[in-house]
Amino acid sequence: MHKVIFDTDPGVDDAMALLFLHRHAEIDLIGITSVFGNASIETTTRNALFLKKAWGIAAPVAKGSGETFDTSRPHIDWPTGIHGHDGLGNIDVPDEIGLPLDPRPAHRFIIDIIRANPGEVTLVAVGRMTNLARAVSDDPEIATLVKGVVIMGGAFDVPGNITPAAEANIHGDPEAADIVMRAPWPVTVVGLDVTSRTVMTRAVLAEIAERGGEAARLLADISRFYIAFYEQHVVDGMVVHDSCACAYVVAPELFKTRSGAIRVLCGGIADGQTIQKPDGRIFPPNAWDGQPSQKACIDIDAEAVLKLIGDTLAKG
Amino acid sequence: MHKVIFDTDPGVDDAMALLFLHRHAEIDLIGITSVFGNASIETTTRNALFLKKAWGIAAPVAKGSGETFDTSRPHIDWPTGIHGHDGLGNIDVPDEIGLPLDPRPAHRFIIDIIRANPGEVTLVAVGRMTNLARAVSDDPEIATLVKGVVIMGGAFDVPGNITPAAEANIHGDPEAADIVMRAPWPVTVVGLDVTSRTVMTRAVLAEIAERGGEAARLLADISRFYIAFYEQHVVDGMVVHDSCACAYVVAPELFKTRSGAIRVLCGGIADGQTIQKPDGRIFPPNAWDGQPSQKACIDIDAEAVLKLIGDTLAKG
Repeated sequence: MHKVIFDTDPGVDDAMALLFLHRHAEIDLIGITSVFGNASIETTTRNALFLKKAWGIAAPVAKGSGETFDTSRPHIDWPTGIHGHDGLGNIDVPDEIGLPLDPRPAHRFIIDIIRANPGEVTLVAVGRMTNLARAVSDDPEIATLVKGVVIMGGAFDVPGNITPAAEANIHGDPEAADIVMRAPWPVTVVGLDVTSRTVMTRAVLAEIAERGGEAARLLADISRFYIAFYEQHVVDGMVVHDSCACAYVVAPELFKTRSGAIRVLCGGIADGQTIQKPDGRIFPPNAWDGQPSQKACIDIDAEAVLKLIGDTLAKG
Repeated sequence: MHKVIFDTDPGVDDAMALLFLHRHAEIDLIGITSVFGNASIETTTRNALFLKKAWGIAAPVAKGSGETFDTSRPHIDWPTGIHGHDGLGNIDVPDEIGLPLDPRPAHRFIIDIIRANPGEVTLVAVGRMTNLARAVSDDPEIATLVKGVVIMGGAFDVPGNITPAAEANIHGDPEAADIVMRAPWPVTVVGLDVTSRTVMTRAVLAEIAERGGEAARLLADISRFYIAFYEQHVVDGMVVHDSCACAYVVAPELFKTRSGAIRVLCGGIADGQTIQKPDGRIFPPNAWDGQPSQKACIDIDAEAVLKLIGDTLAKG
């Protein structure tokens, strides 16, 4: 069993990833931490509670950061054109969910849970890296106590999506992401190199909704608006960015990774770009020297990952 | 016939490229402009004259820039470990060549020759982009009068060579390279994506030296030191960076290119990185918008290019 804390900004593809974690037999979802990104922290936290209630998820929700690690950064508009005004595809999520939050802020929750389960917790982070950066900055020792960190974000050998250089999760808080990459915990980065090739068609999602009961039908309703947005980028369907990171936890053999130090550009026209120095390559002294070797996903068996996601979501 | 001005910092692989241009039947080498990079401007200019004399090249040599476009940039050490203390593989090039230089500085020479041959001149630039940036800044109209610009430099979907992000020619003068990419002339970038896969083995070079007479033997002598350096990067032989750019002029069908605006990062840990926005990809507003679409080489028939180079160099 993988004990997972899911750090998330729901977010349409976040919702799918959450249902995947909830329904996968080998995952023990022990916490949900919210972060800003696909919508404001108020909206993403409310959405996490909404999904917890709708799907009967036991894990507590802890509210996380609502602004970048470097608070002097200018605000970026919420991507309402992708995730809707409510962050869940304009399904009119109620304002009040009526469920309590964990009393701790997300980064403190992360620290406490890792310390209470040494060597056992996998952090899966699919929004801005702010909560993780705050946690490991406040308590650097958790880097040696966590089992692993899997993040959805970045773009290595392919263009970004928010700019030609940068992917949105990393671009949304580059300083936080650079801290996460440079901490001495084992990070696997599931970025656009693999997620952008992992597209669930409308037909497959409809089949999941049919087989997967009420929870899966809600997911299909949530996803409709997001799929309409993606019509300008893919032929048909939904790029399942966040679910890819969750699939990595249980099926890393479906991914090909490359090892090497990773840095995040902070500032300038490529703000938020992720750049890896592949292990074994020789360069003159540079800013990657002395940083820990992390894994970047550079290839994926997309068909097998989609099947894994579909089969898991469709479980009643 | 392709009328070519060769902007170069000889440099070992520059020497090979120069002999290629000199010996190829479809190329009319009408000028050589020197630039700093592989060695100081004094050394690269002296080397250009040395090779002109040794190989009986008719084209005039014009001396170019000895410092970056933004003169406040700190000096980078000359790569004597790659090109030797004399820039030509430690063959002890004489101090004085006894040939006159063109009286004009390189950027003025470039302007004059393009204006005298409207629509006919191809600029092939394989060192820092300083001369080209100065030329097009001083006389922007040459962008519409030149036939094309082919540069060796940059790295798009692969790591750099001077840092994990940047290739040495671009890293050596990023502001100049960004000016060259943004000018409205047709640029083709022959970068590490293709050149690093184009390796001439010692055996092939020895065969060229045997077939190609005294000129080719001098080239083989020059190349020995460079090949020894590359032992840490390739199994056997010489990465023929600069010759690839020359091969593109006569055989573009051996390359696969991708179109899109190209920007060069100036400053920061990825200083000198080249980033392309592929045409047809949609992004929110960004720093690539409104810039001209240029071509980046992303694939090469390396075997055919090596054969083309070898056959051309071996011509007596």
